[in-house]
Amino acid sequence: MAKDFSTREENYSKWYNDIVQRAGLAENSAVRGCMVIKPYGYAIWEKMQAALDKMFKDTGHVNAYFPLFIPKSFFSKEAAHVEGFAKECAVVTHYRLKNAPDGNGVVVDEDAKLEEELVIRPTSETIIWDTYRQWVQSYRDLPILVNQWANVVRWEMRTRMFLRTAEFLWQEGHTAHATQQEALEETYKMLDVYADFAENYMAIPVLKGVKSENERFAGAVETFCIEALMQDGKALQAGTSHFLGQNFAKAFDVKFAGKEGTLEYVWATSWGVSTRLVGALIMAHSDDHGLVLPPKLAPIQTVIVPIYKNKDQYEMVCQRAREIKTMIENRGVLVKLDDRDTYKPGWKFNEYEFKGVPLRIAVGPRDLEKGTVEIARRDTLEKQIVSLENLAQTVEQLLEDIQHNLFRRASEFRKNNTRTADTWEEFKDILDDKGGFIMAHWDGTAETEQKIKEETKATIRCIPLDDNKEEGNCVYSGKTSERRVVFARAY
Amino acid sequence: MAKDFSTREENYSKWYNDIVQRAGLAENSAVRGCMVIKPYGYAIWEKMQAALDKMFKDTGHVNAYFPLFIPKSFFSKEAAHVEGFAKECAVVTHYRLKNAPDGNGVVVDEDAKLEEELVIRPTSETIIWDTYRQWVQSYRDLPILVNQWANVVRWEMRTRMFLRTAEFLWQEGHTAHATQQEALEETYKMLDVYADFAENYMAIPVLKGVKSENERFAGAVETFCIEALMQDGKALQAGTSHFLGQNFAKAFDVKFAGKEGTLEYVWATSWGVSTRLVGALIMAHSDDHGLVLPPKLAPIQTVIVPIYKNKDQYEMVCQRAREIKTMIENRGVLVKLDDRDTYKPGWKFNEYEFKGVPLRIAVGPRDLEKGTVEIARRDTLEKQIVSLENLAQTVEQLLEDIQHNLFRRASEFRKNNTRTADTWEEFKDILDDKGGFIMAHWDGTAETEQKIKEETKATIRCIPLDDNKEEGNCVYSGKTSERRVVFARAY
Repeated sequence: MAKDFSTREENYSKWYNDIVQRAGLAENSAVRGCMVIKPYGYAIWEKMQAALDKMFKDTGHVNAYFPLFIPKSFFSKEAAHVEGFAKECAVVTHYRLKNAPDGNGVVVDEDAKLEEELVIRPTSETIIWDTYRQWVQSYRDLPILVNQWANVVRWEMRTRMFLRTAEFLWQEGHTAHATQQEALEETYKMLDVYADFAENYMAIPVLKGVKSENERFAGAVETFCIEALMQDGKALQAGTSHFLGQNFAKAFDVKFAGKEGTLEYVWATSWGVSTRLVGALIMAHSDDHGLVLPPKLAPIQTVIVPIYKNKDQYEMVCQRAREIKTMIENRGVLVKLDDRDTYKPGWKFNEYEFKGVPLRIAVGPRDLEKGTVEIARRDTLEKQIVSLENLAQTVEQLLEDIQHNLFRRASEFRKNNTRTADTWEEFKDILDDKGGFIMAHWDGTAETEQKIKEETKATIRCIPLDDNKEEGNCVYSGKTSERRVVFARAY
Repeated sequence: MAKDFSTREENYSKWYNDIVQRAGLAENSAVRGCMVIKPYGYAIWEKMQAALDKMFKDTGHVNAYFPLFIPKSFFSKEAAHVEGFAKECAVVTHYRLKNAPDGNGVVVDEDAKLEEELVIRPTSETIIWDTYRQWVQSYRDLPILVNQWANVVRWEMRTRMFLRTAEFLWQEGHTAHATQQEALEETYKMLDVYADFAENYMAIPVLKGVKSENERFAGAVETFCIEALMQDGKALQAGTSHFLGQNFAKAFDVKFAGKEGTLEYVWATSWGVSTRLVGALIMAHSDDHGLVLPPKLAPIQTVIVPIYKNKDQYEMVCQRAREIKTMIENRGVLVKLDDRDTYKPGWKFNEYEFKGVPLRIAVGPRDLEKGTVEIARRDTLEKQIVSLENLAQTVEQLLEDIQHNLFRRASEFRKNNTRTADTWEEFKDILDDKGGFIMAHWDGTAETEQKIKEETKATIRCIPLDDNKEEGNCVYSGKTSERRVVFARAY
């Protein structure tokens, strides 16, 4: 463990920032609240994109691209949406700069003022539903199953790399349907896609649920979400799928003629995940030695480090290392051979451990004589000697093991950090002592939820979708309740 | 040919817009100068992205992401760059809207004015070189071989879908090197990658050359380009690769310690292609029947249309069509079976012809009895009867043929429309009668180039990179010249 690197225990927040920075994932930019996503961090996002994009296409969706700019007036068309999104946003007011009169640099040209200001999209429901009006005439034009990969901007006051930045990258699905039923099915289907991705690629168990009214997307009828638990006991919303009813169709006058010729408003959904998932990935699995990546999302799945004492050994070892690389690559594994002689093996060991590469293979002259290499796995830090004959197969197996082990570990953690609270004292004690998910009864009112938030900073993460109904009394008001909901402090 | 669709002869510009609109590639949005890229158009862009991204990675590049916003002052740091880019751009001045005092909608909150305005990136050299200052200390940090896929905004007054829009999608490579030689090699290498992509994927022959000073990228030492010829005889710049010298390193103070410890400025390149390539693709190959796509970039390479008279036939034919689809897909071909019974076969024939799908297979009961289907190729509109046994192989072969045929046809067209002019009269006559590329002598001065542009609207597209030196006299000034350069009117 490097000296200038915090442990989770010492300072969880600094630990996170140290990982982001030292593993080369991202850094702050010259623009307040905007980050630079560095190549290694972006490579993780690319792997996420590829997996998600395939899942979207396999469920019948296609990609498209809508403008970055949204006319200011569009935000006023959907009453709830304007409250949620039109406030903290970047506003374009001019379209030209000119040389400063004093000769120093450039200034805004006041003659180039826009008639109507443009907002940088914080989300694209409005511009997309303005477009869908042209696309939909009859039931034959439905459903529209469109996704967009894009950048969006929300002028956040407190930012944190990946988790909350002014500009971030995301995908936003926007679908249009002939019936309420079909739109609801789509909402659930995409929630399932997200849960599948979180659990099977990110190796993070998630709770599926519906948001309370307070936490609902501005303009949605219902917001569904997947919620994950981080190692400091705080929750992180990892994806949302919204049933928008006919709200945006009404706001943008999108109607279709049914089979019987009647004109009806179109039903809508939207759903999204963002680069925030990279933050979730870091926080869920990493340890005091640095980043830990699940093999399915690791840009480098296996790194090979040559060990040598002199130039002759270097050349012999690198030659064999290249053969080993090819052998493993042939199984579809992403392998990097770091044969730079400007860095020492020990430095490389630390480097790739810190970067969370799932497997490290050390290839040295003595091992080679015996026909073996040493493999170290990042999740458990265990090492083993493997014969070259079985190497490729072992690598494949270990990568699978690591993927499962990370999910198992995270599931165990969540299980150990999900607690029930039946009294208000208990609720507060758990929150302050341990954090984690708290299953508690709630009277169903926005007032109680708000008071709990004010007193403890805990929010209702979701009302789980499972069927576990249970009579009880609200942990705060004592009023009757039909089921427990999930509380936590959250990112 | 549909009645509401222009031919190239009648109105080339309307023909282009009709194709973009009716093939479902893009449409104008509610925001001036910004287009919506529709699913079919975006699918072409995705295929371009996938091919280019692989080529970039195969040549050692990695992707990253830099902020959308650039502080206004950054533009003033490189003297030439500010003239070229800081003028027509979108400027963010505020970060909040508020409810209008009169209760109607929202207005800009004057209390939320930015201290320094932010420009939406028209290109990212400045923000990226501001970042590279942190990334580069020693020669061991070089080269940096980074690419970014992003949206950019240039406030164009006259826009045209794909070819010139206020917002467009592109990739921009930004590399940093220890030596001039290495940076120059990178510049040429990426020019070759672009030419390879244009010719082998887009099936468009391109001229490689260097730009004259007038046409150089603002901030570059040299701009190299690939130039393509469209069917109306106008040129289109399809990609650029810039050797930036040490200009941005000096502007943003990016130095590295060499092996001997001396501090030196870093050498730079940048290179980019954009969604403009989709416009080039349309203009290069399409005909009076609609879009024509080269198979390598076609989202649907083969469409299967069932022919039937009644429900029994429909079911039998669709059953066989599904088998045929699987058979062809197994060869890696992108196949769509359009088995909708809400549209007639004739309508579907027109639709896919208009959308430029390279091959159409009609599957009908009488053909099936004989064990055959009818294949129509989009490039020549020829039809043939093929036995089911040979079908998959024939499809593969035809797709290859079409790819080559389109390139051959476009090369033939360019050859027939590349002319030499030795006198000013000849030069003007060719331009007005025929257009195309004109090979003419030029005295090498910016003044002459400017006068030719003013009198004829023709510009120097490039000074070719081949070695054909030839003594002669400038077509305009009569002064001596060492070689012919390429003139044309251009998009």
